[in-house]
Amino acid sequence: MNDAYERLLERYQTITDLEQARMVLGWDQQVTMPDGGTPARAQQMSTVSALQHERRTDPELGELLDAVEANDPDERQQAVVQEIRHDYEREAEVPADLVEEISRTSSEAQQVWERAREEDDFEQFAPTLERIRDLQVERAGHVDPDADPFAVMHEDDEPDLSIETVERIFDRIKSDLVPLIEEIRERGDAPASPFEAQGPYDEDEQFEFSKEVLETLGFDPERTRLDRSAHPFTVGNQYDCRITTRFNEDDVVDGLLGTVHEFGHGLYQLGLPDEEYGSPLGEAQSLGVHESQARFWENHVGRSRPFWELILPEMRDRFPQLSDVSVDEAYEAVNRIYPENLIRVEADELTYHLHVLVRFEVGREFVAGNLAVDEIPRAWNDRMEWYLGVSPETDAEGCLQDVHWTEGFAAFQAYTIGSVLAAQLDAAMREDLDVDALIREGEFEPIREWLREHVHRHGRRYPADELIEVATGEPLTADYFVEYAKEKYTDLYGL
Amino acid sequence: MNDAYERLLERYQTITDLEQARMVLGWDQQVTMPDGGTPARAQQMSTVSALQHERRTDPELGELLDAVEANDPDERQQAVVQEIRHDYEREAEVPADLVEEISRTSSEAQQVWERAREEDDFEQFAPTLERIRDLQVERAGHVDPDADPFAVMHEDDEPDLSIETVERIFDRIKSDLVPLIEEIRERGDAPASPFEAQGPYDEDEQFEFSKEVLETLGFDPERTRLDRSAHPFTVGNQYDCRITTRFNEDDVVDGLLGTVHEFGHGLYQLGLPDEEYGSPLGEAQSLGVHESQARFWENHVGRSRPFWELILPEMRDRFPQLSDVSVDEAYEAVNRIYPENLIRVEADELTYHLHVLVRFEVGREFVAGNLAVDEIPRAWNDRMEWYLGVSPETDAEGCLQDVHWTEGFAAFQAYTIGSVLAAQLDAAMREDLDVDALIREGEFEPIREWLREHVHRHGRRYPADELIEVATGEPLTADYFVEYAKEKYTDLYGL
Repeated sequence: MNDAYERLLERYQTITDLEQARMVLGWDQQVTMPDGGTPARAQQMSTVSALQHERRTDPELGELLDAVEANDPDERQQAVVQEIRHDYEREAEVPADLVEEISRTSSEAQQVWERAREEDDFEQFAPTLERIRDLQVERAGHVDPDADPFAVMHEDDEPDLSIETVERIFDRIKSDLVPLIEEIRERGDAPASPFEAQGPYDEDEQFEFSKEVLETLGFDPERTRLDRSAHPFTVGNQYDCRITTRFNEDDVVDGLLGTVHEFGHGLYQLGLPDEEYGSPLGEAQSLGVHESQARFWENHVGRSRPFWELILPEMRDRFPQLSDVSVDEAYEAVNRIYPENLIRVEADELTYHLHVLVRFEVGREFVAGNLAVDEIPRAWNDRMEWYLGVSPETDAEGCLQDVHWTEGFAAFQAYTIGSVLAAQLDAAMREDLDVDALIREGEFEPIREWLREHVHRHGRRYPADELIEVATGEPLTADYFVEYAKEKYTDLYGL
Repeated sequence: MNDAYERLLERYQTITDLEQARMVLGWDQQVTMPDGGTPARAQQMSTVSALQHERRTDPELGELLDAVEANDPDERQQAVVQEIRHDYEREAEVPADLVEEISRTSSEAQQVWERAREEDDFEQFAPTLERIRDLQVERAGHVDPDADPFAVMHEDDEPDLSIETVERIFDRIKSDLVPLIEEIRERGDAPASPFEAQGPYDEDEQFEFSKEVLETLGFDPERTRLDRSAHPFTVGNQYDCRITTRFNEDDVVDGLLGTVHEFGHGLYQLGLPDEEYGSPLGEAQSLGVHESQARFWENHVGRSRPFWELILPEMRDRFPQLSDVSVDEAYEAVNRIYPENLIRVEADELTYHLHVLVRFEVGREFVAGNLAVDEIPRAWNDRMEWYLGVSPETDAEGCLQDVHWTEGFAAFQAYTIGSVLAAQLDAAMREDLDVDALIREGEFEPIREWLREHVHRHGRRYPADELIEVATGEPLTADYFVEYAKEKYTDLYGL
């Protein structure tokens, strides 16, 4: 029995190492690879993916899972089996040529999407989008023929937080945030950002400043890197964690908060237990939990007043043109709400979730077959009008703006789960720590340690729903996020 | 039959991709990885190596080789089969636990060797060295029980240039170079280097200068990178070729010629046919052929007078302290012979090969069992005395100086094969091109193209011995190297 468990861990170690190798190849491609390297790299990535799939679906892995389960595993072993089984069953049930076809279609779809967006021509993308939907629905049918395909897709990334939980969260957002945003909109346009007024900002200086901020937040230099890439991301493991960021020449805040966001992802990785590298206990829980760590640091630290009391003097040393900007002005600027914005990645902390809601609803209807592909632009624009009072004039600024649908339809809600959970963690942390005082003093260690103790060190020891209870004492709820949002923005906008 | 050939190529593609992934992991570890990443990276490398071994020794690979061979393959297919079979048979004949034990022993041996060298204590290393020898001899017995084990080891890297060929080369070196070096030694010490006199040289400036030199030589920026690392090396493929270099603050020439050397390795990779990536036809031939490309550029270009006519003005722009150094002084400085030197990696173009000869002879006697492990220091020092007239006072400067024996005993001769072949290629090229004039004008394209046409584009299409005949019109011979050395140094030293 112990022998079966050891062998199970060995096999999972190989799967982890392949995943990590693939991530290094991907990081390298985006950060250091010469441009000409693409053809060979695409080939290498595809080979490593195929080997991963082979190992993940190896019937011997299934037999080992059964053997461990049949022999009175302890709680820890049960947790390991459950997490590996989740991945195994999802992959093993799906025929290899369907996996292959999905992968090829998605990769071709990226180029189709890119051109369609450039040319603002949804019709170009529509047949591909339909094909991806059909393949994904077929795949979901293999994983669980009795379940709602959209729910199956959701559970790929978020197995322990049901689609009903997500619906409840969106109901709260609709009932509480939509009116709040309307109230803010009625106040008229937010004042111009003093940061934008004082631009441009040299990108090399911004990069140096981001490094300084990471040092202030406490990013272990022995185990981390910061680089630039076209799209910010975080990869690695507890020993080697790499974040990337990008800069906006016109507004120094974008790069700064982007870096703080990725720092949150990175800190989660670094907090996973060293000795569990290669086992599920040494891996991050779901997408939503990962996102909560990024959003905690971006929003509850990076958009807080104490943070700007701390960081603005440092920032003025680096960018003397900011010498006349006050803490209040900075705090207001990083918390502006602009419902007129059409683009998700440029959205503020509140309206962001309505952009997610639009995608959640349209994607779900499309997967369910209640919406034909050519009805998507209209359905999208209607919802933008309902929730935000604006409607895109082009599909490029509407339903063609995100690449995500080339990969699937159920990834967006992780962003909202992340924000909701970040607020819940923030509230729980404040029971134990004087968070504002610590931020103001630049004393981030107790905050990092709280997160490590309550979230990071558990790895995948608990399913996401249990982990949230272990960390905060109660199940996932949108209460804290709604309360935080109302309090902060009522104060900021004098509502 | 075509089907078997396609399947063979597919399998080899996977092996290539794993090898390339392993190289990226290794490059990353030495160039970009945070120091703390080592434990996870070691684990990833070991997993990828194990998967490579599994694929390389898969019995189905052997069956496909047989199937292709049995069905009247054309010449190209024969070449592919022969190269894959060489690797397959070597790996498949060796039991997996022996492979595993060799790998573990070698990796532990590195640390033992490092400490023994630091403490100048050969006895600490002796038992490990014996163990490595025994394991390597056991391995050679599996590959070919009837052959001389040292010859088997040699053929791992150099299957087509027999050990007898290597012996003939060393005989020529002994009979022709040893007296030449003695003559030079009798002239007394070489004049001090004006480069050393004008140091130090800022390392960032040296890095920028190396980039300039690579641009001058014509290193395609779309497909290449230059970085720094503790030990210079080249990795990659025809699409993505990465060289590293290191700098000596006291002598700008070291980093420059090191970069030119790696450029030669890199150019070979870039010249392999794009469309053959993943097949033996898209891979470099043996270690010795690879080394010949590096040494051609380092010695026949980088140490030539026309090169210094070209490069010295550029160099003076970057390092104004060199304004008074003349081309003649520079040319003499980069071609100094110093037989009193004890360290291979610091040796000049001539004595270098006597350092190799010492290792070749001692290694061979040790593998044959004619030399006990504790007799190695004495055997080493005797040979240094015979060939170079000097004897190390410590083993740290003697038989403990190189890490290579932790991996095996037959790698050094590739350096000498490389120099010999470089001179042979240089002579053949001079039949077609006015090499000196091209170098003086900085017109490197015809030189690069000659090498591509005669060597690079063939990949492993021909075995090394045939490739040499295809490229130069005759089999490998030391004649050209000896002639080149005599002419150059007779002139330089006024012998």
